[in-house]
Amino acid sequence: MADPQTPFYLIDRSRLQANLDKMARLRERSGAKTLLALKCFATWGVFDQMSRFMDGTTSSSLNELRLGREKFGGETHAYSVAWADHEIDQAVGYADKIIFNSLGQLDRFADRAQGIARGLRLNPRFSTSGFDLADPARKFSRLGEWDMARLDAALDRISGVMIHYNCENADFALFSTQLDRIESEFGDFLGQLDWVSLGGGIHFTGEGYPLDALADRLRAFADRLGVQVYLEPGEAAITGTTTLELTVLDLLDNGKRIAVVDSSIEAHMLDLLIYRENATLPQDGAHDYQIAGKSCLAGDIFGDARFPAPLQVGDRISVQDAGGYTMVKKNWFNGVAMPAICIRETDGTITTVRSFSYDDYRDSLS
Amino acid sequence: MADPQTPFYLIDRSRLQANLDKMARLRERSGAKTLLALKCFATWGVFDQMSRFMDGTTSSSLNELRLGREKFGGETHAYSVAWADHEIDQAVGYADKIIFNSLGQLDRFADRAQGIARGLRLNPRFSTSGFDLADPARKFSRLGEWDMARLDAALDRISGVMIHYNCENADFALFSTQLDRIESEFGDFLGQLDWVSLGGGIHFTGEGYPLDALADRLRAFADRLGVQVYLEPGEAAITGTTTLELTVLDLLDNGKRIAVVDSSIEAHMLDLLIYRENATLPQDGAHDYQIAGKSCLAGDIFGDARFPAPLQVGDRISVQDAGGYTMVKKNWFNGVAMPAICIRETDGTITTVRSFSYDDYRDSLS
Repeated sequence: MADPQTPFYLIDRSRLQANLDKMARLRERSGAKTLLALKCFATWGVFDQMSRFMDGTTSSSLNELRLGREKFGGETHAYSVAWADHEIDQAVGYADKIIFNSLGQLDRFADRAQGIARGLRLNPRFSTSGFDLADPARKFSRLGEWDMARLDAALDRISGVMIHYNCENADFALFSTQLDRIESEFGDFLGQLDWVSLGGGIHFTGEGYPLDALADRLRAFADRLGVQVYLEPGEAAITGTTTLELTVLDLLDNGKRIAVVDSSIEAHMLDLLIYRENATLPQDGAHDYQIAGKSCLAGDIFGDARFPAPLQVGDRISVQDAGGYTMVKKNWFNGVAMPAICIRETDGTITTVRSFSYDDYRDSLS
Repeated sequence: MADPQTPFYLIDRSRLQANLDKMARLRERSGAKTLLALKCFATWGVFDQMSRFMDGTTSSSLNELRLGREKFGGETHAYSVAWADHEIDQAVGYADKIIFNSLGQLDRFADRAQGIARGLRLNPRFSTSGFDLADPARKFSRLGEWDMARLDAALDRISGVMIHYNCENADFALFSTQLDRIESEFGDFLGQLDWVSLGGGIHFTGEGYPLDALADRLRAFADRLGVQVYLEPGEAAITGTTTLELTVLDLLDNGKRIAVVDSSIEAHMLDLLIYRENATLPQDGAHDYQIAGKSCLAGDIFGDARFPAPLQVGDRISVQDAGGYTMVKKNWFNGVAMPAICIRETDGTITTVRSFSYDDYRDSLS
């Protein structure tokens, strides 16, 4: 059977299973529960597989919360930087736990959330983020409470906290040191709670990551404080599983050889543009090209690539690491054809689970 | 009648008419034709009004092209940085003119586009863009041909060119000087053509812009070269017409007073994030706040604002200049509730022409 028309995202179930096997090992050895962070990846066509190896989902809005409840199941954590009055009853209806971002939100909604476990976001005022833009501990951050007086004032109304301070952190020693800091600075407070979520951003499925050391460190933390630990992996759950499959449409040479492909970083891999990063592209061979998108944006550039032979119009290119923070924020910039979402099953066949047409583009507006 | 639930984009037909009246005056005095650039604004709920004062649309993809043909009418220009083989016949079917980005694309598709007027994009190697990211004349730009030998090689197969080199250019003197350069550098070539599109990015609907001087300059250009001039306004067509209507959900004070609203720059006004700019917010009064989005992104900040009285949860805030490059690239980041699209009719009533639900979020994935 012919492959689908490019562009399309391609999620590989075998590679996904490799991550999930590590997830299962971590959960068993550490006692921690893992919740998929839907803000990173919410392609529910593979939730059947993921939900067998994870405990549930966490969310950053009512829409994500409901998707987690309806399509993933298990434990469903509700977090939002701010809930609206008209959302809160629905949110409480879908959630097992609701985590408020501020004491103000807890004050406003604690009564209406009485039926479920409640928590607060604790901002430890440090993080591993290399981007100020994405650093939850940046100056004047609105993400969570850090004043102990305010946290203490919440203690009789919450059973746990969420602390998110890692960002693609592949360095276990750094993670462990920062967890020491959390124990020493917040240990007395945390010891009075039932559960602590350490958020996402720990790259524990990466090649060579000391998974057992992480598990042991998490168990020691849980035992010392007497809490149930949660992790909220996003990228770690799906890293290395997904490509964006493209076709070369034109070849130019304006002092640099450029291959124009049938996609756009702004539309289909937005973080490359926001964080001014390069895509993971082929790097083998003597023939180098800049891989550029087909939008009107001058800076719509995936990055530089190398190939064993000169490219031809019609050639296929696979962009690696295209699963996290891509499909959840794809958009109709320039009306560029939207990539279908496809799954490579374990037997190698490719299933198209969602494709997009002109009607979808038209109806995205009015 | 109560206003719609926030967030929503609100397009004001009276303000739109003020722009269109200027458009009509420019067309009449200059003889230039104006085509709406759909990459900037494609909300077809107001095309009925716009199409009476503009000549048609221009596009950057097959989806935009078809939308222009089906919803706007008039002259329909087709441009794309690169067409795919499987798109070209459809594109030719919808278009009056097709403008190729490269000689390579012209070579590939000129025969299949024989039935309609064909053009090339000419890159003059200078522009008014203040952002390298968006500068079509940046080094190694893939946007258009600039080598005269290559342009001459196309002459027997094209009847015009598109030259896009302005970007929110409110400076008529600069525009005129750069048009002098185009006349002196490319005049011999352009004089052999039937039409020249000068692209978009001329801010001629702005307050105090010398509209008649622009019209006269365009007419002189057209007369000197014997060409039909086209302009491709995007932002100029809709500037000042649209707000994003928001509600304050939470108030924080972490050393700075912050109001969290029910929106996100990444999801609903993406260019603020990409270009690191601030939204146009209220600036009157003694009470200052940072207006921040409700997504998980630390840098999801609209900007600083001032109000005559302290803000309260539930207060409404209008973000100005929210029409261009917003709705066309809105996305489901964090699953934040998608703004409805509303129109304020000339009698003041507000019509909701498109609203978005959980089902739209869920079905954006699979």
